[in-house]
Amino acid sequence: MRVDGRVGHDLSLSLDELRSRPAVTLAVTLECAGNGRAALSPRPLSQPWLLEAVGTAEWTGTPLRGLLDEAGVGEDAADVLFRALDRGVEGGEEQQFERSLPLAEALREEVLLAYAMNGRPLPPQHGFPLRLVVPGWYGMTSVKWVERITVLDQPFEGYQQARGYRLRQTPDEDGEPVSRMLPRSLMVPPGIPDFATRERTLEPGPCTVTGRAWSGFGPVERVEVSADGGATWSVARLGRQPSTWAWRAWEWNWEPREPGRYELCCRATDAAGNVQPLTAPWNLGGYANNEVQRVSAVVASATRT
Amino acid sequence: MRVDGRVGHDLSLSLDELRSRPAVTLAVTLECAGNGRAALSPRPLSQPWLLEAVGTAEWTGTPLRGLLDEAGVGEDAADVLFRALDRGVEGGEEQQFERSLPLAEALREEVLLAYAMNGRPLPPQHGFPLRLVVPGWYGMTSVKWVERITVLDQPFEGYQQARGYRLRQTPDEDGEPVSRMLPRSLMVPPGIPDFATRERTLEPGPCTVTGRAWSGFGPVERVEVSADGGATWSVARLGRQPSTWAWRAWEWNWEPREPGRYELCCRATDAAGNVQPLTAPWNLGGYANNEVQRVSAVVASATRT
Repeated sequence: MRVDGRVGHDLSLSLDELRSRPAVTLAVTLECAGNGRAALSPRPLSQPWLLEAVGTAEWTGTPLRGLLDEAGVGEDAADVLFRALDRGVEGGEEQQFERSLPLAEALREEVLLAYAMNGRPLPPQHGFPLRLVVPGWYGMTSVKWVERITVLDQPFEGYQQARGYRLRQTPDEDGEPVSRMLPRSLMVPPGIPDFATRERTLEPGPCTVTGRAWSGFGPVERVEVSADGGATWSVARLGRQPSTWAWRAWEWNWEPREPGRYELCCRATDAAGNVQPLTAPWNLGGYANNEVQRVSAVVASATRT
Repeated sequence: MRVDGRVGHDLSLSLDELRSRPAVTLAVTLECAGNGRAALSPRPLSQPWLLEAVGTAEWTGTPLRGLLDEAGVGEDAADVLFRALDRGVEGGEEQQFERSLPLAEALREEVLLAYAMNGRPLPPQHGFPLRLVVPGWYGMTSVKWVERITVLDQPFEGYQQARGYRLRQTPDEDGEPVSRMLPRSLMVPPGIPDFATRERTLEPGPCTVTGRAWSGFGPVERVEVSADGGATWSVARLGRQPSTWAWRAWEWNWEPREPGRYELCCRATDAAGNVQPLTAPWNLGGYANNEVQRVSAVVASATRT
């Protein structure tokens, strides 16, 4: 792995050398910018994620800042570019995956070059041998299979920065770049599922609904739950948040008043005051759809056999 | 975990007791009966698998036969039923997942009650703490989260046996049960992908195409590869087959004669003489589609920049 560009001197580091540097382990939630895409209408053409494109792990690596300090970032530095080993063709352009971070973001102390996930070497699909982990940002920023880090004196304008990962309504717009994860909460759907409709069936009586919530703009401060499709809300109990950058557990004791059909929803609010919306605006790429999850549930009557 | 029904005496065993019994480790390929469903037209309504619903692992467990022998299988035994802990509603019927095996299949020495995968306890999604592994059969037979094994004196007629996993053209047919995996070969698509079309781009020059092949009817005896959509075929080199029940590696040295567009295909033949078809018959559930994989590839000219 190389560090070059607008630096005092280039670095070239083996995996062993990276592993012998100061190490940090941090619990970080990574969510794909396309999580929720399949719920948008019309459905944008890309991976049809419902709500499964998110996860949390303990990442171990060396802070990026230490490497940049050692290389000596030039006074004209503006952007830090990360080049991955994966190659493909997108928009008619052959490319390796490349994304950049503004210098101030790249110098945040919690940005890691990670070589371990949950205490073991990175699995191939998670970026072996080395990946970037940028807490708080959508996952495209945490470049996998990193081979080169280049300090630039101007913003990077490559495909995945200027064309991909932009919030736009039409292909000819420049659009706003996708960056930090909007607040989101997800529940574990209670009861048992119908195979085709995914509607849940619950036994009568009290039910504890549990879930997780996160935001790239700060810690989760509140999670609310609704059993009537968002007409009324109750506040859930929050668990410990393992780090500022990892999702937070929550639970809510639900006591359905009577048998029948309910629509369960949950929404998160972060420390910056961002609240999950009931419906999120459509965009061409299907990015950053953090509208509330809706789970249809039928509470059975006590007398059924 | 209990063993009951038409047995001399019931057994009730803890996980520790199962782990202290004779243990076998076996490499086994498990493929979902719905693998390839999304390629059928019209597309059957269920999980839209392309070709990703298959994998191979080393499973460790105790042979089922030993438990059945200890319990003492009755002379009137016909079927062995496995009940899982997962519950849901399908076809309007609330159920735990239940599947059976004919007694002769259940007594095969390679059928395991597995508690480890690749040397570690089963991950939750793979059936923790205990699952059945039935080498050679499609994956629905290798019941996960097993809680009970019941010997029956007649064939089991529950939902997942009589309604699910049947090859039928219309809902009112009884249909034939899905059982063993038909032969299939898959290649690692060479070159680099186009993001949207998945067409591959290759540098000019020789290219080694590699893949895996398996069958539930016996060892793989031959893999053939075509670069012209199945008009002509070449024989691939076969690697070692780690067990009768695990996929076999293969490779083929391709030397494209000129730049241009090619359609790569591969097909497997097993020891029983079954050959993968170019197109498989449609069925309502979208099961057992083992038609040859087709990969569109463009070999670039040497002079491109």
